[in-house]
This record gives sequence, C-alpha cells and structure tokens, in this order.
Amino acid sequence: MSDTAAAAPYRATDRTAPTRYRERASYDRALVHGILDEAFVCHLGFVRDGAPVVLPTLYGRVGERLYIHGSTGSGPLRAAGQADPGLPVCLTVTHVDGLVLARSAFHHSINYRSVVVHGIAHEVTDPEEKRTALDALVDHVVPGRSYDSRPPNAKELAATAVISLDLNEVSAKLRTGGPSDDAEDLALPHWAGVVPLAPRHGALIPADDLDPSVGVPDYLTAL
Amino acid sequence: MSDTAAAAPYRATDRTAPTRYRERASYDRALVHGILDEAFVCHLGFVRDGAPVVLPTLYGRVGERLYIHGSTGSGPLRAAGQADPGLPVCLTVTHVDGLVLARSAFHHSINYRSVVVHGIAHEVTDPEEKRTALDALVDHVVPGRSYDSRPPNAKELAATAVISLDLNEVSAKLRTGGPSDDAEDLALPHWAGVVPLAPRHGALIPADDLDPSVGVPDYLTAL
Repeated sequence: MSDTAAAAPYRATDRTAPTRYRERASYDRALVHGILDEAFVCHLGFVRDGAPVVLPTLYGRVGERLYIHGSTGSGPLRAAGQADPGLPVCLTVTHVDGLVLARSAFHHSINYRSVVVHGIAHEVTDPEEKRTALDALVDHVVPGRSYDSRPPNAKELAATAVISLDLNEVSAKLRTGGPSDDAEDLALPHWAGVVPLAPRHGALIPADDLDPSVGVPDYLTAL
Repeated sequence: MSDTAAAAPYRATDRTAPTRYRERASYDRALVHGILDEAFVCHLGFVRDGAPVVLPTLYGRVGERLYIHGSTGSGPLRAAGQADPGLPVCLTVTHVDGLVLARSAFHHSINYRSVVVHGIAHEVTDPEEKRTALDALVDHVVPGRSYDSRPPNAKELAATAVISLDLNEVSAKLRTGGPSDDAEDLALPHWAGVVPLAPRHGALIPADDLDPSVGVPDYLTAL
C-alpha cells in the first residue's frame, strides 16, 4: 500500500454511514488507530443460532489488521475457523471520556470516542502470523511486555486460536465538549458542565509468589 | 415476586452456561445488579440484514428491567418498535479492573467483571413507564440528577424512543486475583502481578455559559 493510500480515510458504506449526528462520525485512519490503540478490551458481536452475542475480549492491532485470541474451545473462535468464508463480526471499542450534564434531562449526554468495525473474521493459520498476533495482543495491554515474558511454547500455541479482522469497513464516532442546552433553559438553576472520566492505574500488586529480587521494570513504572 | 424469588439466582440456559472457566461464571442476582449499577455504558448487539451490529449506549435499571433510549430515528430502537414480538438483543456490560501480568505470555490476563443479558427488547409505549425509564437513565449516570434538571417536555418525549429488556437470561463472569503461572515458570526473572485499573473522575468543567451564581451540587462533589 502506498503512503497515500495508507493516509486516505476509510470509505463509508451503508453500514458505517451515520443516520444521525453526522458531525460526530469520522473515517480518519489516524483517529481510528488512536482510539483502537488506547484501549485493549473490545466488544465482539457475532450471530449464533440467529441471535446476537456480544462478548468482551482483548485485541491487538498490526497495521490494518486486528487480532483476537482465545482457547481453541471458545465459541466464536471455533466458529470463525469452521465458517466459510469466515465469521461475520462487529467489533466495537469505546472510551468514555466524560459525563455531560445539561440543564435539561433531555440534553444529558456522554463524551466518548468509539470505533465500530464490520467484517469477516478469519482464523489465523500461518504460524509466523500467529506469533506476531500473540505478541501484539500482549504488547497492546502493556507495551514492551512480550519481550519481558516467557514466549508461548508449542503446546500453548496449539491450545490458542487467533482470528483476524481487517480494518476495511470502519467508522469512528465521538462527542466532545460541553452541554448544548436550549436557549430558554440557560437561566435554569441547575449546574451544567462536564465531569471528566479516565481510567487510572493503581499501585502495582506483586504476585504472592514473586521472587523479591525481581524489580519493577521501567515500562511499568512509566504507566 | 416474593423476597425468596427475588433473591434466587438467575437460571442458567444453554446460552449463559459457560463452556470454559466455569469457576468465573455467576448467576447471583445481587452480583449482577452490582455490576450493572456501577457502569452506565453497555454494548448492545443486534442483527441487521443477517450481520451483527454492536453499539455503545447508555442504559438504566429499574428492578429486573433494563432501559435503553435514543432518537426515534435510531436503527435498533426503530427495529425494536417494528419487530414482532420485539428485537432479539444481547446487552453486555464490562468493567476492566486490572492487568494481570504473568511470567509467561500465555498466562497474561485481565481482571474484569462482566454481565451478558440475552433477550427480546420491546418498545416502551406506556407514558408513565417511559418517564420512569428516562429518569432511571439520567440517575444511572449521576445519582439524583433527575431531580436537579428540567424534566423532558412533550416534544422531547415524542422524539425519544425507549426500549426495555428484562433480566431473565443473565450471567456474570469475573476474574480476580493474581497471575497463575506454571510451577516451572515461577523462578523466571519477569515481574509478575496485577496493575489495578479503575475509572476516575477529573475536576469538573463548568459550561461556558453557566451562570456563576449556580453552585456545584453535593451529589457532584461526592463523586
């Protein structure tokens, strides 16, 4: 892919074009990557026996491809391996950035950034891609961690299924800023504004059986 | 419902019985309510044109019923109103409580608490239930807020659709505690333990047009 193509926005489709709040939608590739890289838990939707199923799961990104892993016995992973040409999925990632309090109940809202990916998930069978995907999953949770842990052995690799989902049909949606009350409500005596929200790391809890001579690595103190 | 029935756990079904990590599953009603009440954004899955769709949205809880709202023009809300007997959905709520770092890449994990609800969403048409649901949605984000904001007027009520989902087919899943490395990995020189994660509120950002005489209410300073 040329640099120009890599920088071009995702193409809107019937599924990703918003029907409301068009100003909140974006197809910008860097924005989408940023939202995806800041989170590590997605909600994966698929259809089982005609009904929707939504499960939280970890994911990793390598370029324009997302990876999800799990036990080879896991439902969606098994289904993606068996289905031809793969398993239709919808993968959604959401950051909640703040509570938006308006004078009117109606205009209460949330500041958020979300990405929705539609596509077909395929099982990753190439051993090298599978290893790359698993490293990406670990490094997505803690950057650099794949270099500071015992790599998967043959038995673990065999017990782990990985599926991939390409970033083709993708959209971001975001709301930022303060409340937008109606003009006639501005003088009402209710506090209005934003309560920011963000995930914070707490103090590290060493494993009970951690060798006391093992120090805390820099990439964890930097979190 | 008698007190005994209210306290009884949810009944496991084919869809909510875990195939793996059985020890992480729970049908305890109080546990489920606690997980649902601590969050306010869920991921709602439904099927559109045979493919899964997963969207983040706010929700509220009144007893054993969840409520979701949106514009009357919103896809799933319109579908729930038109579908007979309603729209099959899967509603999932997830808290990420910590990163679990093991000596082996394979045993890396996440501490989390999630609830998955399967069921049929119905449009709420009773005006009184609709008002109760909208209050619950606002109070779910900030407890007490529905009493300190201008209630919805007739035009806003007409523009807002509400759907309900009963808590019948429900399960919780949770992982807590430290890493569980294999015995032969315990002496490896990699830090192991948990990095706790939790959402935190930041300093309030008053609306640009907030009347300076309006003070910050107690329920916000207590957040």
